[in-house]
Amino acid sequence: MSDIVVILPDGSELSVPEGSSVEDAAYEIGPGLGKDTVAGVVDGELVDKATELHDGDDLVIVTDQSDEYLDVLRHSAAHVFAQALQRLHPEAKLTIGPWTDQGFYYDVTNVDLDMDDLEDVEAEMADIVAEDLPIERVLVDREEALEKYADNEFKREILETEAAGEDPVSFYQQGEFEDLCQGPHVESTGEIGAFKLLNISSAYWRGDEDNETLTRVYGTAFESEQDLHDFLEMQEEAKERDHRKLGQELELFSIDETTGPGLPLYHPNGKRILDELADYAKQLNLDAGYDPVETPHLFRTELWKKSGHYDNYVDDMFLLDVNDEEYGLKPMNCPGHATIFDQRSWSYRDLPVRYFEDGKVYRKEQRGELSGLSRVWSFTIDDGHLFVRPDQIEDEINLIIDNILSVFDTFDLEAEVALATRPEKSVGSDEIWEQAESQLKSVLDDSGIDYGLEPGDGAFYGPKIDFAFKDALGRKWDGPTVQLDFNMPERFELTYTGEDNEEHRPVMIHRALYGSYERFFMVLIEHFNGKFPFWLAPEQVRILPISDDQLGYAKKLQYQLGDFRVDIEDRSWTLGRKIREAQEDRVPYMVIVGGDEQEAETISVRDRKEREAKDVTVEEFRSHLEAERDEKRAEPDFLDE
Amino acid sequence: MSDIVVILPDGSELSVPEGSSVEDAAYEIGPGLGKDTVAGVVDGELVDKATELHDGDDLVIVTDQSDEYLDVLRHSAAHVFAQALQRLHPEAKLTIGPWTDQGFYYDVTNVDLDMDDLEDVEAEMADIVAEDLPIERVLVDREEALEKYADNEFKREILETEAAGEDPVSFYQQGEFEDLCQGPHVESTGEIGAFKLLNISSAYWRGDEDNETLTRVYGTAFESEQDLHDFLEMQEEAKERDHRKLGQELELFSIDETTGPGLPLYHPNGKRILDELADYAKQLNLDAGYDPVETPHLFRTELWKKSGHYDNYVDDMFLLDVNDEEYGLKPMNCPGHATIFDQRSWSYRDLPVRYFEDGKVYRKEQRGELSGLSRVWSFTIDDGHLFVRPDQIEDEINLIIDNILSVFDTFDLEAEVALATRPEKSVGSDEIWEQAESQLKSVLDDSGIDYGLEPGDGAFYGPKIDFAFKDALGRKWDGPTVQLDFNMPERFELTYTGEDNEEHRPVMIHRALYGSYERFFMVLIEHFNGKFPFWLAPEQVRILPISDDQLGYAKKLQYQLGDFRVDIEDRSWTLGRKIREAQEDRVPYMVIVGGDEQEAETISVRDRKEREAKDVTVEEFRSHLEAERDEKRAEPDFLDE
Repeated sequence: MSDIVVILPDGSELSVPEGSSVEDAAYEIGPGLGKDTVAGVVDGELVDKATELHDGDDLVIVTDQSDEYLDVLRHSAAHVFAQALQRLHPEAKLTIGPWTDQGFYYDVTNVDLDMDDLEDVEAEMADIVAEDLPIERVLVDREEALEKYADNEFKREILETEAAGEDPVSFYQQGEFEDLCQGPHVESTGEIGAFKLLNISSAYWRGDEDNETLTRVYGTAFESEQDLHDFLEMQEEAKERDHRKLGQELELFSIDETTGPGLPLYHPNGKRILDELADYAKQLNLDAGYDPVETPHLFRTELWKKSGHYDNYVDDMFLLDVNDEEYGLKPMNCPGHATIFDQRSWSYRDLPVRYFEDGKVYRKEQRGELSGLSRVWSFTIDDGHLFVRPDQIEDEINLIIDNILSVFDTFDLEAEVALATRPEKSVGSDEIWEQAESQLKSVLDDSGIDYGLEPGDGAFYGPKIDFAFKDALGRKWDGPTVQLDFNMPERFELTYTGEDNEEHRPVMIHRALYGSYERFFMVLIEHFNGKFPFWLAPEQVRILPISDDQLGYAKKLQYQLGDFRVDIEDRSWTLGRKIREAQEDRVPYMVIVGGDEQEAETISVRDRKEREAKDVTVEEFRSHLEAERDEKRAEPDFLDE
Repeated sequence: MSDIVVILPDGSELSVPEGSSVEDAAYEIGPGLGKDTVAGVVDGELVDKATELHDGDDLVIVTDQSDEYLDVLRHSAAHVFAQALQRLHPEAKLTIGPWTDQGFYYDVTNVDLDMDDLEDVEAEMADIVAEDLPIERVLVDREEALEKYADNEFKREILETEAAGEDPVSFYQQGEFEDLCQGPHVESTGEIGAFKLLNISSAYWRGDEDNETLTRVYGTAFESEQDLHDFLEMQEEAKERDHRKLGQELELFSIDETTGPGLPLYHPNGKRILDELADYAKQLNLDAGYDPVETPHLFRTELWKKSGHYDNYVDDMFLLDVNDEEYGLKPMNCPGHATIFDQRSWSYRDLPVRYFEDGKVYRKEQRGELSGLSRVWSFTIDDGHLFVRPDQIEDEINLIIDNILSVFDTFDLEAEVALATRPEKSVGSDEIWEQAESQLKSVLDDSGIDYGLEPGDGAFYGPKIDFAFKDALGRKWDGPTVQLDFNMPERFELTYTGEDNEEHRPVMIHRALYGSYERFFMVLIEHFNGKFPFWLAPEQVRILPISDDQLGYAKKLQYQLGDFRVDIEDRSWTLGRKIREAQEDRVPYMVIVGGDEQEAETISVRDRKEREAKDVTVEEFRSHLEAERDEKRAEPDFLDE
């Protein structure tokens, strides 16, 4: 029997006999590690430790010290849920129960569940954990598996699709319970330190609304009660910060579910913030040598056929008939930018050409999936497209990455970076894809940025680098991307004249700094809990006259602070109520003026962190505000001094 | 027989016997005027002098000294054309032949005409003018008229529609020629001092593409050869300035006729200008107390039904089906703004609420009518909607008019103002319309602005004040409007709480400063002949190094002028060619640097008016540019000193 070679995370190679499993390889490294092995990550995929390795596989051994251990634990918690459900409701049919970023869920049917029922299920789960049942992988003959699921058409369908051709098939067993499953799982139910069932919703089998409606039970699990407690507290905080709630309270935006589902209307407070974001992006773009352009929202489908969107994207497009010709609202801005580039001839000296546009795009999500600003039908991308010579790719991508990271910095957001590779539906030859992927990889490797892999998550026309926003609560959201594209220039037959006087094909780079304004705005609302930095705040200063006698003085102050967004609270409320209201509205600064201030021509300044200073001159305050705005500081800091 | 009273232009009243004609009234004023009378304007409509007057009519007497005389002259020139055509091509069928702003046209059929044929027709027309045939109104029995047109189904259709019920019907006769016509006309063909046939195109009968295609012959006529000469020269100049031509030459915009008819793409040069225009409007709006908002481009037709657009506008709307529900791209922004207003409660103290948005709207013009930026499918209105208390209407409209006139001033455009009243298709009661119309009239009367009337040209929801741009060539273009609207607030059931604690209905005012960006951009391109004021110019300064030796110095200068849009001409051309190119690109300033300048650390400045100054310091130039930009001066004036 010959050996195969697998690659370990540090890049070193390990020789193991052909047919070795993840666990075998771990023992090969050392008996301690072998014993501790819970699962493996092979080529980016979390798998059971019994999984057979192949020559050239990337291998990470997962123990209870690994990040991935929590996923495994939650997967087992899903089985514990299913076991408890079957004990209490034997008629319930199980379908699928995966782990997720936040915990796990299980889709079930043939059972009616409400939140009270879940309490009983939770109690039963606690018993199963206390029973500390070993969780064991069992191989079952295909015929026998089909018989086991004689009454469960969902599991039978899995056997005929995902598990087609497998014989025997993999089951996991704990006590009286067994489930068709590829794993991985922890060794015993007792390892689940803490768990909680969170929610019930409905879901379609396979996510397709033409299929049966199932009941989805969400839960989560952790190694310790403390971790669960922290998570639940974070959830509570996230609920408080929910951008849909804050969006209404702070009058940022609204969505009319009847006449405009997935189509947000921005109210003055929201639009002021969007405008600041747009101005900031525009300045970054102009400084980086981008030229502004503007393209229509509607094109005849001839354009979308040329660009490949029609073949790859038509199900997500809004189509309409105009004089018996088919048109589509733009799902992306790139074909419009390529059309502009194509209007004149270019020399190698003119490249790179960089276009940017705050371009509104339209994508038809299922109505049930629309949610606040995070899932919408129309959103605006701060979209940039570069037309570059092949020798300019690396420099340009490096500059883009710098720009993107400076945006993360400005908003105090952490970045998670990943390289997303060729998806199933795609255009272009293998050769072009390999070239593009290896170029992005080489830029990332050289940059020293820590990044992961997202196999199959690329755009249909090329691979991309994805940046995720990690917010103040540690949650991750899709952010900007950089995409390399050798395909669109082919389809549009774009050319430039080289130094050799021959026609050459430019390469396109697609990039954004924010991604979509809608998504980014949502992230910022929740990240800042509505307490926007001074430069972004729709109302920057509110003047609170103690009585109507100071209204004239208040108006003079408003005029003196004319460069900022300043309102006067002129309702006949007590000062206490005025302060509470301003605090609720998250206004960075309150300027309080009574008779003393008016006489001395000074002000009292209070910030939303509830700090206060008296006897401040307007000039002093104004020049601080200028600096705070221009430096885009995250927190009001006049009172730090 | 009792008297009736007509109102003369100076507001005075004239009593004339019942049954009097325009000419009779003129004789009543004085026998000289009676003799000179060519036609009349009754209630805004140009009519034959034989037209009978009614009690309360507004009357203007038209003589050969009046502005309207040219319209009458051109109407007669159309008849002279028709007479000449019939002499040369007796088989030709005549349809209609009105006067226009620029001359006249006649739609004919059953004859093949090319530009060569028109020369023969022109020669024949010259003969008819030389014959000095009297033009006389003749009343013809209806039966006889129908017989005359036994072979002309178009004239017969006119007899059955516009002229239905008239018996006898009005004809005009000159020599052997006669034509069904309401007039007015000049006294004889000899009055036509100069004329020219200009063009042939095709047109649909009644402008409806389902009808027959006719041949339209355009011509013009004047009182003198000099006037015709000036007109043709102006036409030539207009052709040179055509925004479609300049749009391509200056790389401002393009339109892809196949994939995006009527859907302009803005290239970097055009988008920079649009951005400056948007920034200027935004500043005016913020200064005037407007709040920015943003609304979707797509709404379910439920919204358009509520607003009345569906009933009044559906033929112009782009409709689409989404999940078996009908949606429409927005033809106007008002319903979106009303929806935002409706999201919260308002007190009388909060009003006026003023929203503004650069809102893209979509209107389905016939494909054949699309033309450059002047007729498009999607355009952006710098749209504002105010929600005001009835007692605030006059103040707000006055402020809006001030803002609009300051825009005309900034761009050196003359304003033509008109009050447009209730159209045929409209919503709302007579009472509401009368109230709205009289309120706009009263503001205009008080303002002292000279304005005309456009009966029936109002929006379907209310009357409006129309501002037309009069450009450097004296041409008029549709501009911004102010519209008063008592209807939309009813339909959206908008309310505010009054001082009396009761719910009241606000009034809506619709207004724009530019109208549409597309139209305004077109006007500016042609008005300035592409020589945009410094603050608007996409490229403000071009540095021309005499040789490559000065490239380093040029880059230093570009950095020092970093607040402006500065390019370096680094191609290896002669200085002469570099200057010619910059001149063609209409760049306001050229900075020329050779060895001498580099050594002395100075520059030579040349402007596009071909003036030049040597030994200028950069600091001196830079501070002039700041002033020129900030004051939005129309012409580069550094070299005026």
